[in-house]
Order: sequence, then C-alpha cells, then structure tokens
Amino acid sequence: MTDTFTQPFPILLCQLAVIMASAAACGWIARRLGQPSVIGEMAAGIILGPSLLGHASPLLEGFLFPAGSLPNLNLLSQVGIILFMFSVGMEIDLGSLRKHAKVAVLVSNSGILLPFLLGMAAAFPLFAEYAPAGVKLPAFALFMGISMSITAFPVLARIIGERGLSATILGTTAMASAAVDDVTAWILLALVIAVARSQSLATAAGVALSAFAFTMVMLFLIRPFAARWLAATAHPERPGKGLASLVLIFVFLSALATEVIGIHALFGAFLAGAIMPALRPFRNFLRERLEYSASLFLMPVFFAATGLRTRLDAMGQGGDWLVFAGLLILAVAGKFGGVSLAARLTGNSWRNAMALGALMNTRGLMELIVLNVGLDLGILSPRIFTMMVLVALATTAMTGPALSMLKVGRPGSRMEPEEPALSAS
Amino acid sequence: MTDTFTQPFPILLCQLAVIMASAAACGWIARRLGQPSVIGEMAAGIILGPSLLGHASPLLEGFLFPAGSLPNLNLLSQVGIILFMFSVGMEIDLGSLRKHAKVAVLVSNSGILLPFLLGMAAAFPLFAEYAPAGVKLPAFALFMGISMSITAFPVLARIIGERGLSATILGTTAMASAAVDDVTAWILLALVIAVARSQSLATAAGVALSAFAFTMVMLFLIRPFAARWLAATAHPERPGKGLASLVLIFVFLSALATEVIGIHALFGAFLAGAIMPALRPFRNFLRERLEYSASLFLMPVFFAATGLRTRLDAMGQGGDWLVFAGLLILAVAGKFGGVSLAARLTGNSWRNAMALGALMNTRGLMELIVLNVGLDLGILSPRIFTMMVLVALATTAMTGPALSMLKVGRPGSRMEPEEPALSAS
Repeated sequence: MTDTFTQPFPILLCQLAVIMASAAACGWIARRLGQPSVIGEMAAGIILGPSLLGHASPLLEGFLFPAGSLPNLNLLSQVGIILFMFSVGMEIDLGSLRKHAKVAVLVSNSGILLPFLLGMAAAFPLFAEYAPAGVKLPAFALFMGISMSITAFPVLARIIGERGLSATILGTTAMASAAVDDVTAWILLALVIAVARSQSLATAAGVALSAFAFTMVMLFLIRPFAARWLAATAHPERPGKGLASLVLIFVFLSALATEVIGIHALFGAFLAGAIMPALRPFRNFLRERLEYSASLFLMPVFFAATGLRTRLDAMGQGGDWLVFAGLLILAVAGKFGGVSLAARLTGNSWRNAMALGALMNTRGLMELIVLNVGLDLGILSPRIFTMMVLVALATTAMTGPALSMLKVGRPGSRMEPEEPALSAS
Repeated sequence: MTDTFTQPFPILLCQLAVIMASAAACGWIARRLGQPSVIGEMAAGIILGPSLLGHASPLLEGFLFPAGSLPNLNLLSQVGIILFMFSVGMEIDLGSLRKHAKVAVLVSNSGILLPFLLGMAAAFPLFAEYAPAGVKLPAFALFMGISMSITAFPVLARIIGERGLSATILGTTAMASAAVDDVTAWILLALVIAVARSQSLATAAGVALSAFAFTMVMLFLIRPFAARWLAATAHPERPGKGLASLVLIFVFLSALATEVIGIHALFGAFLAGAIMPALRPFRNFLRERLEYSASLFLMPVFFAATGLRTRLDAMGQGGDWLVFAGLLILAVAGKFGGVSLAARLTGNSWRNAMALGALMNTRGLMELIVLNVGLDLGILSPRIFTMMVLVALATTAMTGPALSMLKVGRPGSRMEPEEPALSAS
C-alpha cells in the first residue's frame, strides 16, 4: 500500500487532486474579495511551492511533489500552455484588428515602449547581482524589458466583459490595444529568444528570418486556404471530431515548427489560433471544448508548476524586497503611465485614459508564461523570476480596485462569471 | 536545431501529431470499410509500434519513440483511461439497470460464464510456455478467463445507435446485458488483481473487503448525497466550471482510492461515473466536454501506447499463430455461443439471439485496457498480450459483418457518426 506512492501515476493523480482543489479554493476566495479567480489560482500555485507549503512542511512537500515527479508536471503544464495559447490566438480577430489599428497601435506601442525602456534600464544595475551566470547583458536587458511590457489579453477580456465595457469605446480600444500589444510583445520575445539561444548574431538573424518566413506562410498561404476549406465543409458551425482532430494536429505541428526554428512552441500555437477561420461559431465551438479541459486541469497544473519554481525563501536579503518594490513601481509607472499618457494625447478624457492604463497594466498569466520561458532558457535567475512573479500577481490584483476608484463600469463583486458565456451566433 | 529533439516536450509534440494523424487516417479507412473507426485507431497504434514501423525502420522508430519518452506517453494514456472510464461509468444508468435486471443478468452471466471457463481451461496448457516467470497459475488462469469475457460497452452502444436498434428490445437487452457484463467483469478483475498483487490469501481478502466497503460507501452514501446536492444547484443542466472542477477532483480522488486499496485506478474512475446524479443533461454536458478532449487526443495516445507494447515480431514460432487462432476460436465460441444460447433459451428468436451474441462478442478497447493491466502487473507476457490484442481487434471487426449477415438493423456504410449525437433532454 505504501509503495503505491512511488509509482508515477498514483503520484500524478494525487497531485492533480491537490492542485485542482487548491486552485478552486483560492479562486473562490479571490472572487469573494472582488478579484478575478485567476489571481487566486496563481496564488494557489505559490502556496503549494517550496516558498510556503515546502517551508511549513518539507515532509509533506516531498511526499506531494517529489523531485522525480516535476518533469511530468512540467510536461503537462506545457501541453496546457499550448492549448491555452491556441485559444488566446483564436480570440484575436486579425480582420477587426486592422480596422482599429490606428489608435490601438499608438496606444499599445507607447504602452510597450515606456515599460520596455524602463525594464531595460533596470536591468543594468541588476545584472551583476541578479542575472544567472553565463547570460549576456543584452539578452538579460531585452528580456527584462519585455517582461515589463506584457498585458494579459485573456484576463483583460474577462474584466472588460464583467464590467459591461465590451460595447464601449474604452472597452474596444483596450481590447484592440491589448491585442496589438500581445502581438508586438510576442514578436519582440521571439527576437530575444533568437538572440539568447544563438551562439552568434548571424544565427540569431537566421532564426528571426525563419520565424518571419513561417509567419508569412501561415498568414498568407494557410489562412486563406483554411477559410476556404472550412466554408466548403458541411457544418462549419459545429465541426465534427474529425475536423477538431485535424485542427489539433495542426496546432501541435505549428508549435513544433516554431520550436524547431528556435523560438518557442507557444508562438506556433498562438499563430495557429490567430489564423483560424474567423467564423465565430466555429472558433467558439473549439475554444469552449479545448479551453474547457485546458482551464479545468491543465492551467492549474501550470500555476502549480510555476509556483514550484517560485522561491520566496530565496529572497533572503532585505535588499531583495526593495528591488521587488522598485521593479513593481517601474512596471506600473511604465505601463499605466505610458498607456494613460498616450491615450490622453489621442483625445481621451483623463478618466478614460487612466482606465485604459489600469486595464493594460494587468499582466496576469501571460506574464507567468513569459517568465517561465526566461527561467527555462537560463536568462532569469530563480531570484529575479520570483520577484517578477510577484510583480505579475500585484499588477493583476490592482486592476479591479483601480477601475473601481476611477468609477469605470459596473463594480461587480464577482469579477468573473463561473463560465465565460460564449455567444452562439 | 537538431538538439531540439532531445528535449521531452518537442518529442511529445511530434508524437502527438503523428499519433493523432495516424489514428485519424486509419479511422477514416476503417469507416470506408464499413467498420467502426475504433478498429482503425487500434490498428494505428500497432502500426506505429515495434511490430510494423519499428520493424520497417528502426531509425525512424527510435527517433519518434525513444525509450526515454515512453513513460511520458504511458502517463498521458493513463490519464486518458481515467477520463474515459469515468465517462463509461456515466453511461451506466444504475436505475434502469435494476429494471432490466432479470433477463440482462441471465444473458450476461452466461455470456461471461462460458468464455470465462474456456479462458481458464486454455490457461492450463498455455501456462508453461506463455505465462511470465514468477506469476502463479491461479492468477494467470483467472486473468485469461476474464480477458475472454470482456464486452466493449461503448463500442456496442455506438454500433446499436448507428444501426437504429436503440429503441428495439434487442438493442435495450444488449445494452443492459453489456452493462451488467461490464460491472461483473470489473468486479472479477478487481478480485483477480487483489489475488495477483497480494502475497497471501489473507491480504487478498483484505483488499477485496476494502474494495467492497469503498463501493458500498460510494453507492449508498455518496450517490444519494451527490444527487441531492446537484438538485440544489442553480443550473444543474449546465454545470459551471466550479462544479466541473469539483467533479474532476472527485474522479481523481476516487481513482486514487482504488489504487491505494490495491486494485486499480480505473475502477475508482468507473465507479465515480456510475454514481454521478442520473440527470441526463448534467451527465451529457460533462461527458461531451471531458470525453471530447479524451477521445480527441488521449485515446489515440492510449492506442499508441498499447501498440508500442504489442510485439507481433515476438510471435516468431509458427506455433504462436496456431495458439492465437485457438484463442480466437475459444473467445468467439464462448462469448457468441454463450450469449446466443442463453438468449435463445430466454425466448428470443434464433436470429435475435445470434445478433445479441454477435453484439456482445465486441471486445474493443475495453479489452485493451484489461490487457494492459495484465501486462503491467506481470500476469501476461508480451507474447500472450500480443495474441490477446489481436483477438480484441478480430472480435471487434467481426461484429459489423456478422450483423449484416444476420440482416439486423440498417447496414450503414458508416458505422459511426462523426460525433455521437447527445440528446439535449
């Protein structure tokens, strides 16, 4: 009976139950506090990690999360990210993006530029003490810049929906800006990864060129082809299992392609989602089903895998907490400040401009995905990773209160519906 | 670029794409041939394994399925089986089972008894040459008996639906018998595992008693509680993510409980499904979503994991194929013969009795699940495992043609809908 827990499968069952239960409980608490449940789920991951549970009871931590089981959890969480990024990609409507492009690009680019520069600047004094051995300053600085500039498109979409802002100019501008922001940030991230992974600038250029070529093929060859193909299908609004399985194969192959090119599998998955035929019912059908499983048990696994790598206990020195405070201030000043200013300059009222700034400052789980990539590639050290995870948590948690202070939208006590209502048309 | 494929995640992506594509292609071919697509998916697994692909190109096999990646595939396939068994459990309606119990129990028990005895009998001459070292004759014989008696409830349900037999007496009797068969076979299997895993008969009795106690608690404590709890929920017919997540936690815990007791996780998952509140829309909602992901990519992984363990190449000696032929004849004689006779004796026409026999002879993927358990526990050797996998394939493939010969139901050219239509009421 006792040797049951030396087998990988019983351990995994146990982990899944514990991870999902903590995510559900913390998500519920977060909603009670007027926060989106994603905050609670992120916190649940940290609670299960070495910082809290592992600190309180190393015995229990060793039993629940033995070192040998972590690769399995990471693998599952990566599958979850692929499905999640695909569904985020499907939320991007390339057609409507072109329509709103003008103001969105301006707002979003200043919303990226300022935090990007601030993050780069912060990297210089931090490099000596906080960068891991072996990483070069340009890679570290670029990565810090990007991790300051991320906006959590999916969390934003939920907050906007919950507050009844979907049909307002504020809501659509925020959504479009966040979408542009996402796309820009992913492109920048791909470039940084190309630089960080390659031995020479020539290889980096090769990687960037291949990534560009792949994106062009997807956008201008596969996208129109997929749309025409779907239109010729019998029931495009309720795709059968055969079609769904083709889509999933396509997602995996696209993820694999970007991984082979030398950037990261998540780009391929995101791109695969973005070029799906724009037919809403088709996208919703797929999203509802794939995201259901993904968000039900793969995303909590991702949060737990992230939490297991977050080392609050490694932030021993008092200076670390000061650095964290500094990074948080830079992050908020850059994103909230940059977006608010740009929005004000393009003719919005101060209140709306600041609301847009508050919305775009939500980093959420997108930031966690980027940070995990940084840790995996050895660009971030566990200490700076931990600080930035806390920045992601803090900036996501402050969005709701900030909007309430600005009296924007309905201040819902529940920030998030139990299940996102998907329109059927 | 080349070292991408030494990382577990890119390998997994590549495997998922290849596995799903082969399953889809072979499933399509099977449907063209008038067979259920599950036949094709089972065959796809064997094709990818060492018997065919590995034999044709060891290099490609080593690239696609390196030894180090197999534990990951097995883990994923076990998660798939848990979700699948839960959804099979939800297809069992304990209430309606009680109504049809009389004839169903008679038909199903003779449909188990005869093949069980034949399987046991076959075990005696096979034991010396085919049982793995260390296994005792009783365990081997009992296991052979059980693996002869399995009926694939889900495949059966699809065939009956496709042929328009759902509302006929034949169809309902077959479904009820298969359900009773399933439940009986799982109980027997649990007993055999208890015997095989335990050092002494006393431990085995302890395991069996614990399993019995657990089942009673689930049936008479948790089942009525869950039903009352769901009835008090706001929208029981469209459960939110919170509820779905609770259900999944429950499934994992129940699976874990049976694993800790010393039987197998799949029993807990099956039992969890069977005791879910009987409200159809609730069950369908969960099934549609969980089974969607499971059947989309986890079941093909299970078939591939099974195929990777199927060694046609190990069946070197000519005698092996004779033994396989003998086992196949015994399997068909036992199941088809036993059920037909019992059905005839309980007052059915010969044609209907034989149709029932043909239906119950479908072993499908349930058999594969049982065989994998046998291989994992060391009760079956790879050689006998391979033979029995072929028996499962053959008996599943012969159901359609047999029904057509008996002129029962609509002889559909497509045996299976693209997606099982779930009634909304």
